[in-house]
Amino acid sequence: MDFAHDAATQELQRTLLDFMDSHVHPAEATFHAQLGELDDRWAWSRVPVLAELREAARERGLWNLFLPGEQGKAHGAPGLTNLQYAPLAEISGRSGHLAPAVMNCAAPDTGNMEVLAMFGTPEQQERWLTPLMDGRIRSAFAMTEPDVASSDATNIATRIERDGDELVLNGRKWWITGAMNPECEVFIVMGKTDPEASRHRQQSMVLVPRDTPGLEVVRGMEVFGYDDHEHGGHAELRFSDVRVPAANLIGPEGAGFAIAQARLGPGRIHHCMRSIGVAEMAIQLMCERAEARTAFGRTLSQQGVVRDWIAESRVRLEQLRLLVLKTAWLMDTVGNRGAHTEIQAIKIATPATVQWILDKAIQVHGAGGLSQDFPLANAYAGIRTLRFADGPDEVHKNSLAKAEIARHQH
Amino acid sequence: MDFAHDAATQELQRTLLDFMDSHVHPAEATFHAQLGELDDRWAWSRVPVLAELREAARERGLWNLFLPGEQGKAHGAPGLTNLQYAPLAEISGRSGHLAPAVMNCAAPDTGNMEVLAMFGTPEQQERWLTPLMDGRIRSAFAMTEPDVASSDATNIATRIERDGDELVLNGRKWWITGAMNPECEVFIVMGKTDPEASRHRQQSMVLVPRDTPGLEVVRGMEVFGYDDHEHGGHAELRFSDVRVPAANLIGPEGAGFAIAQARLGPGRIHHCMRSIGVAEMAIQLMCERAEARTAFGRTLSQQGVVRDWIAESRVRLEQLRLLVLKTAWLMDTVGNRGAHTEIQAIKIATPATVQWILDKAIQVHGAGGLSQDFPLANAYAGIRTLRFADGPDEVHKNSLAKAEIARHQH
Amino acid sequence: MDFAHDAATQELQRTLLDFMDSHVHPAEATFHAQLGELDDRWAWSRVPVLAELREAARERGLWNLFLPGEQGKAHGAPGLTNLQYAPLAEISGRSGHLAPAVMNCAAPDTGNMEVLAMFGTPEQQERWLTPLMDGRIRSAFAMTEPDVASSDATNIATRIERDGDELVLNGRKWWITGAMNPECEVFIVMGKTDPEASRHRQQSMVLVPRDTPGLEVVRGMEVFGYDDHEHGGHAELRFSDVRVPAANLIGPEGAGFAIAQARLGPGRIHHCMRSIGVAEMAIQLMCERAEARTAFGRTLSQQGVVRDWIAESRVRLEQLRLLVLKTAWLMDTVGNRGAHTEIQAIKIATPATVQWILDKAIQVHGAGGLSQDFPLANAYAGIRTLRFADGPDEVHKNSLAKAEIARHQH
Amino acid sequence: MDFAHDAATQELQRTLLDFMDSHVHPAEATFHAQLGELDDRWAWSRVPVLAELREAARERGLWNLFLPGEQGKAHGAPGLTNLQYAPLAEISGRSGHLAPAVMNCAAPDTGNMEVLAMFGTPEQQERWLTPLMDGRIRSAFAMTEPDVASSDATNIATRIERDGDELVLNGRKWWITGAMNPECEVFIVMGKTDPEASRHRQQSMVLVPRDTPGLEVVRGMEVFGYDDHEHGGHAELRFSDVRVPAANLIGPEGAGFAIAQARLGPGRIHHCMRSIGVAEMAIQLMCERAEARTAFGRTLSQQGVVRDWIAESRVRLEQLRLLVLKTAWLMDTVGNRGAHTEIQAIKIATPATVQWILDKAIQVHGAGGLSQDFPLANAYAGIRTLRFADGPDEVHKNSLAKAEIARHQH
Repeated sequence: MDFAHDAATQELQRTLLDFMDSHVHPAEATFHAQLGELDDRWAWSRVPVLAELREAARERGLWNLFLPGEQGKAHGAPGLTNLQYAPLAEISGRSGHLAPAVMNCAAPDTGNMEVLAMFGTPEQQERWLTPLMDGRIRSAFAMTEPDVASSDATNIATRIERDGDELVLNGRKWWITGAMNPECEVFIVMGKTDPEASRHRQQSMVLVPRDTPGLEVVRGMEVFGYDDHEHGGHAELRFSDVRVPAANLIGPEGAGFAIAQARLGPGRIHHCMRSIGVAEMAIQLMCERAEARTAFGRTLSQQGVVRDWIAESRVRLEQLRLLVLKTAWLMDTVGNRGAHTEIQAIKIATPATVQWILDKAIQVHGAGGLSQDFPLANAYAGIRTLRFADGPDEVHKNSLAKAEIARHQH
Repeated sequence: MDFAHDAATQELQRTLLDFMDSHVHPAEATFHAQLGELDDRWAWSRVPVLAELREAARERGLWNLFLPGEQGKAHGAPGLTNLQYAPLAEISGRSGHLAPAVMNCAAPDTGNMEVLAMFGTPEQQERWLTPLMDGRIRSAFAMTEPDVASSDATNIATRIERDGDELVLNGRKWWITGAMNPECEVFIVMGKTDPEASRHRQQSMVLVPRDTPGLEVVRGMEVFGYDDHEHGGHAELRFSDVRVPAANLIGPEGAGFAIAQARLGPGRIHHCMRSIGVAEMAIQLMCERAEARTAFGRTLSQQGVVRDWIAESRVRLEQLRLLVLKTAWLMDTVGNRGAHTEIQAIKIATPATVQWILDKAIQVHGAGGLSQDFPLANAYAGIRTLRFADGPDEVHKNSLAKAEIARHQH
Repeated sequence: MDFAHDAATQELQRTLLDFMDSHVHPAEATFHAQLGELDDRWAWSRVPVLAELREAARERGLWNLFLPGEQGKAHGAPGLTNLQYAPLAEISGRSGHLAPAVMNCAAPDTGNMEVLAMFGTPEQQERWLTPLMDGRIRSAFAMTEPDVASSDATNIATRIERDGDELVLNGRKWWITGAMNPECEVFIVMGKTDPEASRHRQQSMVLVPRDTPGLEVVRGMEVFGYDDHEHGGHAELRFSDVRVPAANLIGPEGAGFAIAQARLGPGRIHHCMRSIGVAEMAIQLMCERAEARTAFGRTLSQQGVVRDWIAESRVRLEQLRLLVLKTAWLMDTVGNRGAHTEIQAIKIATPATVQWILDKAIQVHGAGGLSQDFPLANAYAGIRTLRFADGPDEVHKNSLAKAEIARHQH
Repeated sequence: MDFAHDAATQELQRTLLDFMDSHVHPAEATFHAQLGELDDRWAWSRVPVLAELREAARERGLWNLFLPGEQGKAHGAPGLTNLQYAPLAEISGRSGHLAPAVMNCAAPDTGNMEVLAMFGTPEQQERWLTPLMDGRIRSAFAMTEPDVASSDATNIATRIERDGDELVLNGRKWWITGAMNPECEVFIVMGKTDPEASRHRQQSMVLVPRDTPGLEVVRGMEVFGYDDHEHGGHAELRFSDVRVPAANLIGPEGAGFAIAQARLGPGRIHHCMRSIGVAEMAIQLMCERAEARTAFGRTLSQQGVVRDWIAESRVRLEQLRLLVLKTAWLMDTVGNRGAHTEIQAIKIATPATVQWILDKAIQVHGAGGLSQDFPLANAYAGIRTLRFADGPDEVHKNSLAKAEIARHQH
């Protein structure tokens, strides 16, 4: 159980911190200004400054860091371990959505690239993985449905029926992150190919290009009042007799559930790593504000209740970070399946802890903390959604408890 | 300590419940559609259906219910007690901002009308109070400032200087609710007239018409991602050598702090009453959703954790409602000053309890609970701001504790 | 919904407060000293000073206040309403177990007297109720069993079999409060008379005198480290072919569940009323200590975190008291059955709130707060048991939630 | 940051686990029975079976594991690192106070041995350290005082005055753990030698043999009704002109505060390690009980709320353990001073987390969970005291927050 950052990681940390200071932070205002000038407010990946930043990141080797190990190397990434990637993802998480996008390490593309790297055919990889790794296109992952509790993946109802050499999709999806961006060119869609198969063999995954007839982007979902257009929004989609070649199937028919499971672990830990960065940002703002603001004759930083919040924030966050690091280390050493319980644990612990810290940071900022003048309310909205991501916390707690109870039977 | 609803109140409850079902709820979609068609998205009070609804409310006696007692009657209101108004405000709170506006019972106009009724000269009342009671104009209350902790009212820094028969204002305000609406014709502005006076005699309040030169509406503040344009937003204002006649002073010079205190009690209890309605709405949605949704073979309403949330919600809300009713009763019987501790207590308890209930209701709804498809996330944003309204909870807790400690000294 | 204390109640409050100051508080040390000198440490009701106090209480009309209405009057009690009794029970609760015993208002005798008054035959009333009302004997209520989850009353396994004119009992009970006291002369025992009957008709209640052969008092149960000998402890009992006349049956055979239900409501509300008194005592001690103790240059009462605790304590307790008063009022006006939901609600809310307040009061006292030098830890232990009394909170929450969900179905 | 258990640690873990199963657990009932037969109920270290167990532990090398590094080796201990000792202390903590005593690793002797090893003269070491390391005598640490907030060590008021070659002590102490045991032969007493010195140079530490005239053991303090006689209780002491040779001074005059600080770190981490063992015991009992108990037709382990508690317990405990391991590793690598913030953090986090878990484990056990039939209530009482040990949590949070705020200043 060795969580130390090795020399290569420390070097990358330095490079990334420098890059954040020299490039990312100074460009944030520009990014938002240029985004506001686009014809299509959802087309964030067309913002000019982004191209410059991505070029600069790539030059510094800050590119595709998320794809681990040999697989990463096979596709031109440095192939870091999860443990090596963790502190870098944390740094990128401190500044919202820009840094991950600049480094080609933004969800949901990362998860999709992993799926294609693991399960894609050479043709699929050439057609979709290569431009994704190059950052030339964007993608989305279409699993959640409005009409069923998607936490139970066997509920997924979108139909995928074979018709000769084609697959025909019918159904509805929502909360498809990134899909409002017109440059999101392909969707990985989960649907039911065989309702008669056993519970975990009914689903399949298929690649659906954006421009396929019958695929309609209905609207963007909002989170609190945010439409998240600066990273592609969350679309509701309707599939009406959408036809794709059978060759667009990822893996064998009936493998959808297994692929979804394989995709979950890395996705969760990346979220958690970045969320820790969010919490660090919140603690920093909270401390700065507490020191700068005076009420009733003393700075907020001298008020006992504010100190209590700051101490609790630090103590909780240190514990959380160690759990995430342990999980990364386990994924590296015993594999995602062996780290199953820990992956559940960080999924449960992270949003609860970070949401608590953000709430306190907001409170220290007064009403301004809820506004566009600070990143706290927006971060809160994003973290709040994590309590639903991959199923609500309650589903994961239930599962983790069952395993714990079983461990104690004789 | 008699909280029973008398016959008049019960009659008004029936009338209001009928009116909500027959008029308000059916008009909600129309209101938002017509609002979307306005040239000025902030001019919500121009929405055509609103005029119809207001006419219908007035015909039914559901008009200006908020202004209590003899004062209310003197200005053409029915003059309910706070205890009589409480259950009506709760009903109106169940459906967001539309019902209070329809009934001419919406903040911040209500508090401003109270100030004018209590402290305004006959000329001020004729010029501003009458059209406000008639619902012909809107108003705002400009106290909070971006540069100081406004919870400590003595921090208010906007300068009001006398220059002959005029008052000259300079300073900045923000979070001025309703002020983005172009029909918001007048601001009650708190500022410092005498920095040398004793601590609670430095401030004064003055009426500033919207079109006064030097008054600039800088921008709208957002809460989470909501701009709250459907009830006039929250403006940042800049006053640069804004001149008004000295006759626009409300009450004597130096009375600003006292007037602000007098305005707080009713404002808070109205918020709390409506917030209880918000919580009732949340419990109802939570129960309906829990019964309608199935995961892992059972409805959510059969899951122990969901039941725990529902039971806790009900138990907490019943206690909160009783505290609010007691406070209303105290305000009616011993006056706002005599109810000081209870007014603080409901200010502390209400947002904490209602926020907790909303969070659980959201969780039962899945990600949809955070979206525009349900009123829960928007309500959460609104309730969250109450933890800052009239100063952060911590200020009120500190004050309440000091009084409690003093009570136990010998 | 009128919670005002009427003139009679106010008079009794004054009398009781005087009596606490003049008699009960001054006698507390004597009570414990004399208790320590008894041959049998469990025989608390033999403590000499207690007889004097009881005589004095009776003279002042502070006797049997718990038995409500006409029923109370029929048996020589003043026959207060629940609402009248509430503030008196609260006062008595501020000082531990002595005051209720002095006033003949101590559990479990109170519940047993109610059962006998409601369901006893004239012979049973003469034999047991009269000496109980006179305070000449003590009693216990034997329901809970070690081998089953007694929260589900249908689990009760103790067998009661008819054999001619006799009933034969076999089984085990525990947590039988008061039963270690040798002056506890009679047990009301719940057991199964007909395992084949429908679910709620299987149980019966029977009076079993202490000296009946086959009834063994096995040991006293401890709560944390307390054996609670100063109010009779909590016994484990074993019934081995215990024979009593069939005339000892209370009510008809099969009525045990219904009688238990009837006994619960008043028992719970009495506990809750006294618990509020416990919380008031804790707040008082917390404030006094905070003012008296200095650390790091300031009194604890000047520390923000301590003030936060005190404010939260007051705000939570006010809400709780109102809920208990409302419940008492409902029991008086619509009956115990009509107040079912509220009785559940106070059972859920009271121990949670009071435990929280006690924990903070302890923390303000430092380690001393956990010791015999203050009443806080002992009170904490007592309140903690209430989270199990009449079934764990979770059972009541589950039931209350089911009712709430049903209310919202269409 | 490598927390892996090395081969030596794993070997010791196996040995200790075997020893717990073969010797300690089977002897627990005997220990309590023999303790009950002693003439002096406080003289727990005279229990015959203890001598046998200690002999067996020593044979297996399970002796004095607590004293780290070269210092440990210099005094005949194996000299483990903190990281090596951590999992062993956790195992010993699972079974209450017996295992640490058997292994000569019980507080407060451990801290006292460290003080003597670090600061004692050769004569002091021979006279006191050697028999302590041999387990022939017991000791106590007398710092806390009833009349001052001892969390602020500069408050310590006991006077130590020099009179020729002697030191004269006058003052009161309480909560002196272990001191009720007549075999507790020596006290390390902290007192004020120079009230005029600078704040952190006023205190000194001195060795006071139990039989010194003027030293009175006044009484034992209770914790929730427990007198903790099975590990020596918590004494109140009075020093009245107690005279010891000046050679009994530990370190130089005025070094008391510094020695106390040096003693704190290891003491805290040992407590935390054992507390994690307590929490593991609680989770195990909770799971076993939940599986064994049925209510309303399902085992408790199938109830959603119980599962939620179990999952939360595991997730919280994993985070806590990692934080404790990191702290141990830091103490080993950068020293106790370098681990200052982490030592504060575990002091804050451990009792809060473990208390929460114990509360839930108790709730799953019903009222039995509070009784002598399970170790949970006793463990709860012990853990609750940790929120005061070395000062209340609030003091440590305040200090940690100040450091965090300072870190963010520019």
